[in-house]
Amino acid sequence: MAGNKERGICSALTSALFEYDTNKVVHIRSKTIGITNRLVQFTIICYVIVYVIIIKKGYQDTEKPYSSVTTKVKGTALTNLTSTSGQSFPLYGGVHLWDSPDYIVPPEENGAFFVMTNMIITPNQTQGTCPEDPNERDVNCTNDSECLAGTPVEYGHGVRTGKCVLADRGKAGLKVCQIYSWCPIEIDVVPMPDFNLTNGEPLLDTENFTVLIKNNVQFPKFNESKRNIQKGSKLKSCVYDPVTDPLCPIIKLGTIVKLAREDYKSLAFQGGVMAIIINWECNFDPLTYSCQPEYSFRRLDDSESPVAPGYNFRYARFYEKDGKLYRTIFKAYGIRFVVLVYGQGGKFNIVPLLVNVGSGLALLGIATVFCDIVVLYVVKGKTYYRTQKYQYVHDPDHPTEEKSLLGREISDR
Amino acid sequence: MAGNKERGICSALTSALFEYDTNKVVHIRSKTIGITNRLVQFTIICYVIVYVIIIKKGYQDTEKPYSSVTTKVKGTALTNLTSTSGQSFPLYGGVHLWDSPDYIVPPEENGAFFVMTNMIITPNQTQGTCPEDPNERDVNCTNDSECLAGTPVEYGHGVRTGKCVLADRGKAGLKVCQIYSWCPIEIDVVPMPDFNLTNGEPLLDTENFTVLIKNNVQFPKFNESKRNIQKGSKLKSCVYDPVTDPLCPIIKLGTIVKLAREDYKSLAFQGGVMAIIINWECNFDPLTYSCQPEYSFRRLDDSESPVAPGYNFRYARFYEKDGKLYRTIFKAYGIRFVVLVYGQGGKFNIVPLLVNVGSGLALLGIATVFCDIVVLYVVKGKTYYRTQKYQYVHDPDHPTEEKSLLGREISDR
Amino acid sequence: MAGNKERGICSALTSALFEYDTNKVVHIRSKTIGITNRLVQFTIICYVIVYVIIIKKGYQDTEKPYSSVTTKVKGTALTNLTSTSGQSFPLYGGVHLWDSPDYIVPPEENGAFFVMTNMIITPNQTQGTCPEDPNERDVNCTNDSECLAGTPVEYGHGVRTGKCVLADRGKAGLKVCQIYSWCPIEIDVVPMPDFNLTNGEPLLDTENFTVLIKNNVQFPKFNESKRNIQKGSKLKSCVYDPVTDPLCPIIKLGTIVKLAREDYKSLAFQGGVMAIIINWECNFDPLTYSCQPEYSFRRLDDSESPVAPGYNFRYARFYEKDGKLYRTIFKAYGIRFVVLVYGQGGKFNIVPLLVNVGSGLALLGIATVFCDIVVLYVVKGKTYYRTQKYQYVHDPDHPTEEKSLLGREISDR
Repeated sequence: MAGNKERGICSALTSALFEYDTNKVVHIRSKTIGITNRLVQFTIICYVIVYVIIIKKGYQDTEKPYSSVTTKVKGTALTNLTSTSGQSFPLYGGVHLWDSPDYIVPPEENGAFFVMTNMIITPNQTQGTCPEDPNERDVNCTNDSECLAGTPVEYGHGVRTGKCVLADRGKAGLKVCQIYSWCPIEIDVVPMPDFNLTNGEPLLDTENFTVLIKNNVQFPKFNESKRNIQKGSKLKSCVYDPVTDPLCPIIKLGTIVKLAREDYKSLAFQGGVMAIIINWECNFDPLTYSCQPEYSFRRLDDSESPVAPGYNFRYARFYEKDGKLYRTIFKAYGIRFVVLVYGQGGKFNIVPLLVNVGSGLALLGIATVFCDIVVLYVVKGKTYYRTQKYQYVHDPDHPTEEKSLLGREISDR
Repeated sequence: MAGNKERGICSALTSALFEYDTNKVVHIRSKTIGITNRLVQFTIICYVIVYVIIIKKGYQDTEKPYSSVTTKVKGTALTNLTSTSGQSFPLYGGVHLWDSPDYIVPPEENGAFFVMTNMIITPNQTQGTCPEDPNERDVNCTNDSECLAGTPVEYGHGVRTGKCVLADRGKAGLKVCQIYSWCPIEIDVVPMPDFNLTNGEPLLDTENFTVLIKNNVQFPKFNESKRNIQKGSKLKSCVYDPVTDPLCPIIKLGTIVKLAREDYKSLAFQGGVMAIIINWECNFDPLTYSCQPEYSFRRLDDSESPVAPGYNFRYARFYEKDGKLYRTIFKAYGIRFVVLVYGQGGKFNIVPLLVNVGSGLALLGIATVFCDIVVLYVVKGKTYYRTQKYQYVHDPDHPTEEKSLLGREISDR
Repeated sequence: MAGNKERGICSALTSALFEYDTNKVVHIRSKTIGITNRLVQFTIICYVIVYVIIIKKGYQDTEKPYSSVTTKVKGTALTNLTSTSGQSFPLYGGVHLWDSPDYIVPPEENGAFFVMTNMIITPNQTQGTCPEDPNERDVNCTNDSECLAGTPVEYGHGVRTGKCVLADRGKAGLKVCQIYSWCPIEIDVVPMPDFNLTNGEPLLDTENFTVLIKNNVQFPKFNESKRNIQKGSKLKSCVYDPVTDPLCPIIKLGTIVKLAREDYKSLAFQGGVMAIIINWECNFDPLTYSCQPEYSFRRLDDSESPVAPGYNFRYARFYEKDGKLYRTIFKAYGIRFVVLVYGQGGKFNIVPLLVNVGSGLALLGIATVFCDIVVLYVVKGKTYYRTQKYQYVHDPDHPTEEKSLLGREISDR
């Protein structure tokens, strides 16, 4: 018995190995249907080969790059702050030259840099009491009881001392809460009032400054690493130009803003955020190898934003005088340049190719479905074709079922 | 001959164009099998249409956003450092107000900001020799030979001078290596000892500070660009609330920490890293267009980390006195807020739709495979169905082979 | 009539529900074709199951991690700047100790840190006029008319005053334009000339410094969050070693450079950009759960770059003396470490599995196509098989068409 069973399994396996099942095909010779069929098939094959495989590079595995960016800005600009009242402006008054350690704050960032283009300088601040800026909320008062001691002024400069005092700076008559703060309080008006601002100072003329961008992209999946500065290239003294020198990594700030269709003067005055987009479309297949960066530029912030339009932040320089701490505070307006690295690398890989081919083969089934509908329900000889395509088989155990269905079939005709 | 061949190829092509092959189908009328078949097909079609196409948006091409973030923190806080010994604390002693240029270090980062909430201040450090902190490794000594001159103290503050001296700061009797360093050495204990710390100073009360987040996302594939501050919106004086004002870009630091289910006081004391997650789920199809940010908050660092729990770093403010360099060093504890931008944008694209449809059609083959097994091996009339489905063809060149296989087939029955 | 129609639709629906269509199959018993068929099928099934499903984890949905990184560098180094001319170097002369607040600039960055290893220090700069560096472009002159007042020197240090003066620093006889700038001008030569540089100072010995890296990765799709420092691990006093301690988050800078096969001394002298790559290959399936970081290191910049090789930037420390602003400027050469977080997490998901299975089933069609070609065009009995596979059907409305095609078929044989 056991031997018999074994032999049975063995012969079943052998038979399975030596058999081949192929679908029985009804071969219809008809101009209309034949052409329809070929047309649909042709469309699908075209779509798969031309669009999916060739244009969309369906034979490639893809990866987005990992990127690292360093930047270096060069350029100098002058300001000339002279008070209208004849008083000299401390530390930063008179002719003052600004170079990159002055206007790049902080000196280095990861994939970004900030160029200060406009500023409000408040030198010689020290800890003490002074009247709050009358433009802040909840600081106007008529007597001391309205200035609860110890409460900070919301969005303001310090903590109330509990006294109600006269506002300074020409706002005579107006009474505000006194605060403990860094005094004197910054006058938050740009351009800085009370100064002879020749050339719109302290607006720095940064339009002709240049930035050198070093970008390295990594494609770990393909073990490829690329730089925007190629070995042996003569990029030492170039300046980027979208037409004549599109690969040069040294770019004028004015060019960036112009190519983003923004006005440099107003951007510099109010500040803003610009994107330097480096796009790497890389093909790592040996025969069609190509991998070069493409630069483009765009403004990221909204110049008409309802909340805090433009871009600015405050930073301070601290110093000591006679054992007391002083600081100069800068409200720095400027352009924040963010380097965004886009793109993707592709290389031949069998998996996406087979997935696309498999999916394309499956789509060819659509041609058959469509033509079957035409053959069986549309063309004149549909009844004939139906009898040819279908071989009707009835459940041998339910002979009653047969009849009613046969009946339907006949009445259907 | 050549003409004959040409005519042959030509007629073959014509014939290929005018033919249509369709599978011969065995049409079985059976309740059981019919229902089984339709059920399996229905399940697969449902899965493809409902789950893949509709829920998973299989008709869309997707892209993750490229993002740029700028932030601005507002708020002020007081400290009041008074020594227990009556000595005044240099520069930062007494009532001291901290505003954003003081507690935001560095003043601007790319997609992150740091708010100092606690600190150890060591003012008036200058280059010189002093005893090392006795808590460092390998610094206890009994005589000079144990302090090899010129060797740096590992994880310590300076380089050994070769002398073994008495430790300072109340650790009388203990002898440690003298080092060349910035002196005096920082006392690395928090809160700062030897001070009357009213209100737990120098812990800053930053819980009510607010941050304005400006986020711009780019979807280059779809040429879309979105901002979290919409044009014309009345977000000027809002404060973020997860229920009443979930789109407001001005968020209280306390709200961030509370929504991440952390305790502000202990987080501020030890420092930590918080994520502000902005999630953009964008649908760029014209009819169902939607694209709005969603804010959520999470703590990233491990409050029970075995190595350096919390978050802190040191920075210095340098100044000159009588031609000599001095510095004030801050061990800054605080909350590092990292803005992570998640999400994806989707838009109708024919390729993923056809890939999913093609793959779905192929899956329909599973229904046929399953029902064929039922028809040919399970139901009562299986032998009958088998003869109907299969048309047996034998290799015309191996008539011997036929028999043995036929034999198996018969015994099989 | 309406009732009749209704009954018709109803019975059609019932019939569609109770029917099952399965392809009529021609079952060929032939060793050659059978084995060929099984071999091709076996190859495709192997590819799908072994390669796509198992190796490429085709049953998993994948996601790249979102990451946050903080770092902390420890270590101290000495410099000893002594002028050859006997003059003392202001502020930074003589023995000077450098600790992390001195050489980490800025004190904290998002996913990166900079360690200063070499520097050019120019102390006591103040605003004034001085001769430009003769190495700059367009500054050599013979008389004042060549130095147009108010024009900035391109890539230089300041703005021309209109005077042509003698160059300083030993370049006697050479005449250059005078500029308004921070004076004196930095001597851009490294190592700093005119100094007794014992031990190659001011090159800092940073090779033995260590960095602690805290990395947190988020997989929002799977709701998973991982840290490189695991809870309860004994990593407090470890030092990273690729063989003995590959999970330790405390890494010596020298180890990073050595594992990237770079020379520390030359990298430190000129500066450079190093990548610390943390690779997370995570499997979130319950049974095969694994998720650990793997560290690797690579140099990102090009040591032989034609433009600005190495890495450096300038930063300044400002101070006030007698009401006048002074600064010390550092040209900081050093190593910029960028922490790149790679990897992906995967978890079982039915969609990619079914897409791959569907695509695999479709590929099985290739076996049939291939074997059909063999059966119908290659093997001896092809004519016999053809008559068995195909059932010829002619357009009943075009009897003339039939003949010509039949004629082709016959001549074809």
